[in-house]
Amino acid sequence: ASIARPTQAEDRPHIKWRLASSFPKSLDTIYGGAETLAKRVAALTDGRFEIRVFAGGELVPAFGVLDAVQQNTVECGHSASYYYYGKNKALALETTMPFGLNTRQLISWVMADEGMTLLRELFAEYNVLNFPGGSTGAQMGGWYRKEIQSLADLQGLKIRIPGFGAEIFSRLGAVPQSLPGGEIYPALERGAIDAAEWTVPYDDEKLGFQKVAKYYYYPGWWETGTHLVFYVNKAQWESLPPSYQSAFEVAARDAHMEMLAAYDAKNPPALQRLLANGAELRRFPDDVLLKAYEIAHQVYTEEAEKNQSFKKIYTSMMAFQDRSDAWWGVAESPMANLRQAVRRKK
Amino acid sequence: ASIARPTQAEDRPHIKWRLASSFPKSLDTIYGGAETLAKRVAALTDGRFEIRVFAGGELVPAFGVLDAVQQNTVECGHSASYYYYGKNKALALETTMPFGLNTRQLISWVMADEGMTLLRELFAEYNVLNFPGGSTGAQMGGWYRKEIQSLADLQGLKIRIPGFGAEIFSRLGAVPQSLPGGEIYPALERGAIDAAEWTVPYDDEKLGFQKVAKYYYYPGWWETGTHLVFYVNKAQWESLPPSYQSAFEVAARDAHMEMLAAYDAKNPPALQRLLANGAELRRFPDDVLLKAYEIAHQVYTEEAEKNQSFKKIYTSMMAFQDRSDAWWGVAESPMANLRQAVRRKK
Repeated sequence: ASIARPTQAEDRPHIKWRLASSFPKSLDTIYGGAETLAKRVAALTDGRFEIRVFAGGELVPAFGVLDAVQQNTVECGHSASYYYYGKNKALALETTMPFGLNTRQLISWVMADEGMTLLRELFAEYNVLNFPGGSTGAQMGGWYRKEIQSLADLQGLKIRIPGFGAEIFSRLGAVPQSLPGGEIYPALERGAIDAAEWTVPYDDEKLGFQKVAKYYYYPGWWETGTHLVFYVNKAQWESLPPSYQSAFEVAARDAHMEMLAAYDAKNPPALQRLLANGAELRRFPDDVLLKAYEIAHQVYTEEAEKNQSFKKIYTSMMAFQDRSDAWWGVAESPMANLRQAVRRKK
Repeated sequence: ASIARPTQAEDRPHIKWRLASSFPKSLDTIYGGAETLAKRVAALTDGRFEIRVFAGGELVPAFGVLDAVQQNTVECGHSASYYYYGKNKALALETTMPFGLNTRQLISWVMADEGMTLLRELFAEYNVLNFPGGSTGAQMGGWYRKEIQSLADLQGLKIRIPGFGAEIFSRLGAVPQSLPGGEIYPALERGAIDAAEWTVPYDDEKLGFQKVAKYYYYPGWWETGTHLVFYVNKAQWESLPPSYQSAFEVAARDAHMEMLAAYDAKNPPALQRLLANGAELRRFPDDVLLKAYEIAHQVYTEEAEKNQSFKKIYTSMMAFQDRSDAWWGVAESPMANLRQAVRRKK
């Protein structure tokens, strides 16, 4: 039953926004999250709310997206909050943390527990609203020129890794390096670094790391479910009509799920191809994992003592993780382990 | 920058739809999926596209939703496709299957592999379009009056269970029963049945099963990630303006993610309360799990031989699962198992 009724033109003004991405187009699945957002918002508003996506560096530097949105240089952005670890380590928690929540747990903590409220309080300090911006799922533990057989093999290891992961590797005796994506391959090739972490098989494959550092380690304990973000300038957000706010909000969440679904479909065949092309899978030894776990929690405890916003978010996440893991160990893990056992028997 | 421009009233007609749910309001999280859909669609269209939700039995019988949407008795519905197992067993695959895809795998197969295309072909036979309608995650293995210590304990066991699960239990020597939700508790209490499966801790808790059948088994191998569905009548769908179609589509996907997030937040404390109130957790013995796995695949092979649409969908899902499990065993499972190991040490 359709009943036409008068519509006010001002209900749906024509609005054009620019979105600054932190990502290059070559990371097609991550970069594509912003394109999904823009496409959905346009479809929901009959093209009246247009968002134009710019790759990292086109409008503002790749790691300048939070600043640009805060300062209203652009209306919105697509980024990963752990890039802003230097401003406040609490920001990194929005992305992922070593031994942190898995992908579904992070989504649940944000959408159905107190996550979104706590994160919005934090981002309010930057005049920014945060929205889910895609997920890669759990990442890999990176590429190594030599095998890691125990903690001793980490001593002096020059590894390209950022953020909390770097802090933990440093306390494990390694020497973390900071290098942009494009410089990793040549540095590994000439031995200037011994190891490097990047992301997941689908993206790692493009950089060809297996040719210069064939040992591919798992699990990626410092990125247990990596969660990207859309930022919107607060004043810009408040100027939107309510239906456009809804359009942005559901489109962001849709882009989040679509990216995760895409990675979950693309990573398995990429891993198969990597293994066919010379990569050798290795699991981190138990002593490395357990010591890293212990150090990670020391690092968090120290940070929580001096950083209130970190403490608040971290405490909430850890309480959620404790509850959730007890359920995960009943529902999901036994089923996943059964499938793995059956696979090994085949 | 806002530029007002003329709007045609016919761009956004006032449309009212009725949605027939298969679920009672007491299953608040599942039932709430349709309310989330309706709320989002209204917000996206400034209230011009209204969907009114009716609980199971209010407009049409709970298990008559697919028929009602097919016949255009209602424009749309919210259900679980495995309720229509009797029409075509392929329909059940849309919901979940014993030893089938986990929650993320099912989302990925639908959204990023060939799942949606194959399911749309199947539902076209019913003049219906299917949309994601929420997920519960992996379910439990139900409530038992006595412990199950081996396959022998399943002989003659009267268990309330529907669909493929019933078929497999029957071949394991049990005697599956069909009982509506409200009749399970009294049947367990007077010993008319020995066991019953329902859903997840948050919903199981409401029915108080631990008082009459305290052994609570896991993993729920016949529902490895239960996926609900919104149905839309094809002619009704085609009559919608494109922006309303987009609104329905993204709102459905949003409702899907929101329900999963809600269950992931509600199940952990519900499980804690159940254990505090007398439930005793038990894992199915290995011989039961492995025999059930073997029988499940016999059942699928037999069905595939006589049912082309089943064969097509099943084959695609199994190929996806094989690829995905190899990646899951590297990325997600080792991290989940590490967390479980650390928990046990605490």
